[in-house]
This record gives sequence, C-alpha cells and structure tokens, in this order.
Amino acid sequence: MTGDAKGGQASLIALDWGTSALRAYLMDCDGVVLDARSSNCGIQNLPQPGEAGFEKAFSDIRACWPDGLPVIAGGMVGSAQGWKEAPYILCPADFTQLADASVRVATGAGEDVVIAPGMICRPDHGQPDVMRGEEIQIAGALAQNPRLGVNAEFLLPGTHSKWVRVSRGRVVDFTTYMTGELFSVLARHSILGRLMSETPAERNATAAAFVEGVAASAAEPDRLQHLLFGVRTRGLTGDLAGNVLSEYLSGLLIGNEMAAGLGRRTDPDAPLILIGEQALCDRYQKALRVLGGPPAEYIDDASPSGLYLVARKVGLLKAASLSG
Amino acid sequence: MTGDAKGGQASLIALDWGTSALRAYLMDCDGVVLDARSSNCGIQNLPQPGEAGFEKAFSDIRACWPDGLPVIAGGMVGSAQGWKEAPYILCPADFTQLADASVRVATGAGEDVVIAPGMICRPDHGQPDVMRGEEIQIAGALAQNPRLGVNAEFLLPGTHSKWVRVSRGRVVDFTTYMTGELFSVLARHSILGRLMSETPAERNATAAAFVEGVAASAAEPDRLQHLLFGVRTRGLTGDLAGNVLSEYLSGLLIGNEMAAGLGRRTDPDAPLILIGEQALCDRYQKALRVLGGPPAEYIDDASPSGLYLVARKVGLLKAASLSG
Repeated sequence: MTGDAKGGQASLIALDWGTSALRAYLMDCDGVVLDARSSNCGIQNLPQPGEAGFEKAFSDIRACWPDGLPVIAGGMVGSAQGWKEAPYILCPADFTQLADASVRVATGAGEDVVIAPGMICRPDHGQPDVMRGEEIQIAGALAQNPRLGVNAEFLLPGTHSKWVRVSRGRVVDFTTYMTGELFSVLARHSILGRLMSETPAERNATAAAFVEGVAASAAEPDRLQHLLFGVRTRGLTGDLAGNVLSEYLSGLLIGNEMAAGLGRRTDPDAPLILIGEQALCDRYQKALRVLGGPPAEYIDDASPSGLYLVARKVGLLKAASLSG
Repeated sequence: MTGDAKGGQASLIALDWGTSALRAYLMDCDGVVLDARSSNCGIQNLPQPGEAGFEKAFSDIRACWPDGLPVIAGGMVGSAQGWKEAPYILCPADFTQLADASVRVATGAGEDVVIAPGMICRPDHGQPDVMRGEEIQIAGALAQNPRLGVNAEFLLPGTHSKWVRVSRGRVVDFTTYMTGELFSVLARHSILGRLMSETPAERNATAAAFVEGVAASAAEPDRLQHLLFGVRTRGLTGDLAGNVLSEYLSGLLIGNEMAAGLGRRTDPDAPLILIGEQALCDRYQKALRVLGGPPAEYIDDASPSGLYLVARKVGLLKAASLSG
C-alpha cells in the first residue's frame, strides 16, 4: 500500500464492524486512509433493531462522504446476527478464497455493501474454532509485511484471543482463548471482584502483581480454577493489596493462555507477531518475557489495510494502480 | 451420635449459616435433630443491614423453639462480613483447636451464640487457601465415620469446590477450585450462555455431552480457556444442540477440576469421600468414572453432626451423655 501522503481521490469506504464498535474508513484507490470515523454502533448496539438498524448506522457514519463509492465490510457484521450472513470459509484458506466468499447487501440508498466472511477451522483432534475480523487484520499485516506470509504465528489478544498460524500466504489454523472475556466476567460478576479496589497503585506494585500472576499460572497450567481463587485468598490475607488484584488476575489469565499457546507452537522458529491495542499487547509482551518466550513483533491495527486488500481481490477497485 | 429415635429434650440450637442460606437445627443432648428450619437469610441476604440483621434472622428462625438454649454456628457467619469475625485457624489443625478458637456474640435476648472459625492453609509453594463451613461438614463426617479420621481425602463440590486431606484426625491441607462459580458466571454473563436453550434434552444426549466435556478437559488440562470457547463453536456448528451446551460446560469445568485434583493426590490409597448435594455429587461420581478415578464414598449433608461435635468440644453440652 503506497500513495501520495496527502492521498488521492476518494474511491472506497471500508467498515470494520464488530460487536461493540463500528469503524469506517474513506480510502483512495491506493488504500491511503483519507478520513476515519467511529461509532459505538456495534452489531449489538444498533440504533434500531434488524436490517434498518444496520442501514441507519451505516448511513450515519458515511453521511459526509461522497455517494456512489464501493463499500467493503468485515467482522461480526457478516455473522448470523449481522446485516447479512457470510458463512465461514474453511481453513486452510487464503485471502482470494476469503474475497470470493463475500456476500452483498444492497442499501436503500442504492449502494452495495460487500461483506467478507470469517474463517472456521476443524482440527483432526479437538473442537472447531471460528473467527470474524481477525482474518482481516492478518490480511492487512501480510499486505504491509509480505515476508510474514511465508511462515508466521499471529497473536491477537482481546475478548477472544486468537493464535493464528500462517504459511505460504494461507491461514493454516487457529486457536481461541477466552482470556479477555474471562477477565471481564470474573472481575465484574464473581467473588474475585469484591476485594478489588480502584485506588491507583504504585507502578512497581502493579507490574509485580502482573508478573506474579503470569509466573504462578505458567507453573501450574492445569490448575487455573484453583489459581483464580488466589485472587481472593491473597487479597483476604493482605498478601496483595486490593488495588493490584486485577493485575494479578490479568497475569493469571494471560500467563495461562501464553503457556498453552507457546507449548503448542509447531514451528518455534516462525516469527511471533502481536496485533491489537497497544496497552494490551504490552501485557502480552511482558508475559512473553516472564516466560522466556521468543521476542514478538508488534503491529498496530491492520484492519484498514486488510479491508483494502479484500476490496481489491473482490474487484471493487478495478481501475486502480496495483501496489499492495 | 446415637440416642432415642424419637429424640430427647431440646438441648442445643445449631446454625449452618452460609452466604445464601441459613439452616437451623434443634437438637437433643445426643445430637439427634428434633426439628430443622431453613431460610434464605444468608449473610448476603439479611432482613436488615448490620448486626440487627443477624439478630432478626436468628430470632425469626428459632422463634418457635425453647428459650435459653446454647447456640453453635458455623460458616460465613464467622467471616469478616459475618455477625462476628472468628479468625481462620491455621492447618494442620484438629477440631479441638477449631472449637477453642470459636468466638461468642450475645443476642439482645440474652443468648450467647458461639461461632466456629474457618480454616486457612499456607502451602510452602503456592497461594494460601481458606474455607468456612466445609470444615464443619468434615467434622460431622468424621463423627459419623471415625475410621475416616485416620487418612482420607474429602471432596466437597460447590460454588468453591474443596479437596481436603485429613490424617490422624487433623485437617492437613486443602485446595479450592472455583468450578461452581465459573459455571454460573459463564452461563449467565458470558457469550457461552447465548446459544444455551432450556428445552429439555433426551437423557442420553445430556449424559453424552457431560461425558464429552469431562474427557475433552482431561485430555488438555492446561487449555481450559480454549476448551471453554468450544461451548460456543460446538453450538454454532450444530455439533452440540443448544439444550446440552450447559452439560458440556459443566463437564469441561468438573473434568478440569477432577484431573487437577486426582493428579495431585499424595496418597492414592486414601479413601475419597464426596460430601454435598446429591445431584452435584452424582456429576462428580460420573466424572470420576470417565477418568478412571477411584470409587468415591458419598456422604449427605454432615453439618448438623459437625456442629454438634464442635458444640460438645466447646463445652456447650456439659451434662449430656458422651456418645459422639
């Protein structure tokens, strides 16, 4: 993706449309982002129920942009609860297959929105796994760093953290860990939140509690349900202050995910790439250091590049100069 | 504990007072239960805040029983959020030490309520652990089955499941697993509850889903956070019906606890004893069979016997015939 720093003519609208947020990008024909907007109209927070809600959220966010542009979308907007379902494609799969399996929905204003599907994998042993949105991030990361397409493992922390193996331009398989959601439901709805306090803690104490959690979890990876209770007992006994208990919980959960993920790398030489929100990725970097894991490269939000790549493969930008 | 089947004169009120329920027993001097009452006035659901709430809940539940009886209580009523705190005693400890560490609180009506403490253990490696109420159950089980005092491991499933090692009449140490609470918060507050349906399922399908969960969990004990996501993916793909997903979740969590607990038994020959609610203990029995664990003996609610034993040790029943 190259182009004039100031950007060319508006040629594409790209939507990263998830559960809790909608992010929209106006791009030129080379993928340069000319304008970006976001709203809290995730698919679970639409202004109206049903299809009309999707239409309204879309028309609101693109209101001040030119009419008649092609539109590409990815994420939960293509789920069974989305605007139109784009069934998962089966891994191993590449991004041409992803583009080929996209679906179209027409807006009342006469625009076509092309929705990319998610991916599913079905390992020989174990349960199926699914993702929607993360595959777009990976498409973007590969567009920005083509060398990673040869062989790499991507780690996308979040509500449902994903470990994704890529080889020769294809997503081979991936594994989800419920780390972020477990943190949130345990802190909010379980007894573990009771002793937590929001009084600011010293930076050293915060860091120490997180590291202790990671180390405890990695030392007994099969005993998470016991270790979690330590958030309570270590608080009760005064062993950890109330204002670092959430850090300890975060360390336990990330450490448990990390130990499981690192222990299952099929190619320990494949570069490990972290994609996502900076502060969260920093936690994963710290956990990697505690566990003596490989250094991980960090890539910021790559979904605009990913959406642009898919739009090109769908043929939404036929006349543009091919540079990605 | 023996005595006339019809029971003798009322000599003791025993309170099993937990977080969500209060159970009260009227006993004769031999521990025979003459009457039992229960209310939902657990310590988090008192009729009024503070001490007055404890007084009222107590006076309501014992209203139709004779005045002037000694009162023994155990469970969360002795916690920092209880009527009066009875600090944990450190394990290894026996039930005489437990009785010696009890505290007293006087009611407005001039009765003394003796509150037994809970227990804490501090393993050389790992985090501290605590219990309140389970130690009373174990005291009762040992009173009913003195042979178990020699050497046994008790498993008390529940919100916070406990594995408790007893040797030569002492509680040596114990381990908590958050199994029951994880089940509840995940089914109610996480994405895993979304696809669950309450339409009754065939008994075979229910049993099969539970067994699958136990087996999956035991096969990958270090990957619980991934396996949990299978409740969603196996529902999404139609691999499991919505009305058996909660069984699969239950199997995953109980299987994970069971694998960790069985793998850490220091004396595999010590009898394994299940105490608790019948339906829940049946699940644990099933999980034990799936994992090829040892047979476990089942003991129903033993807290009345335990409270009676502690009351005797405290000296609340000085004049009675010693039979326990």
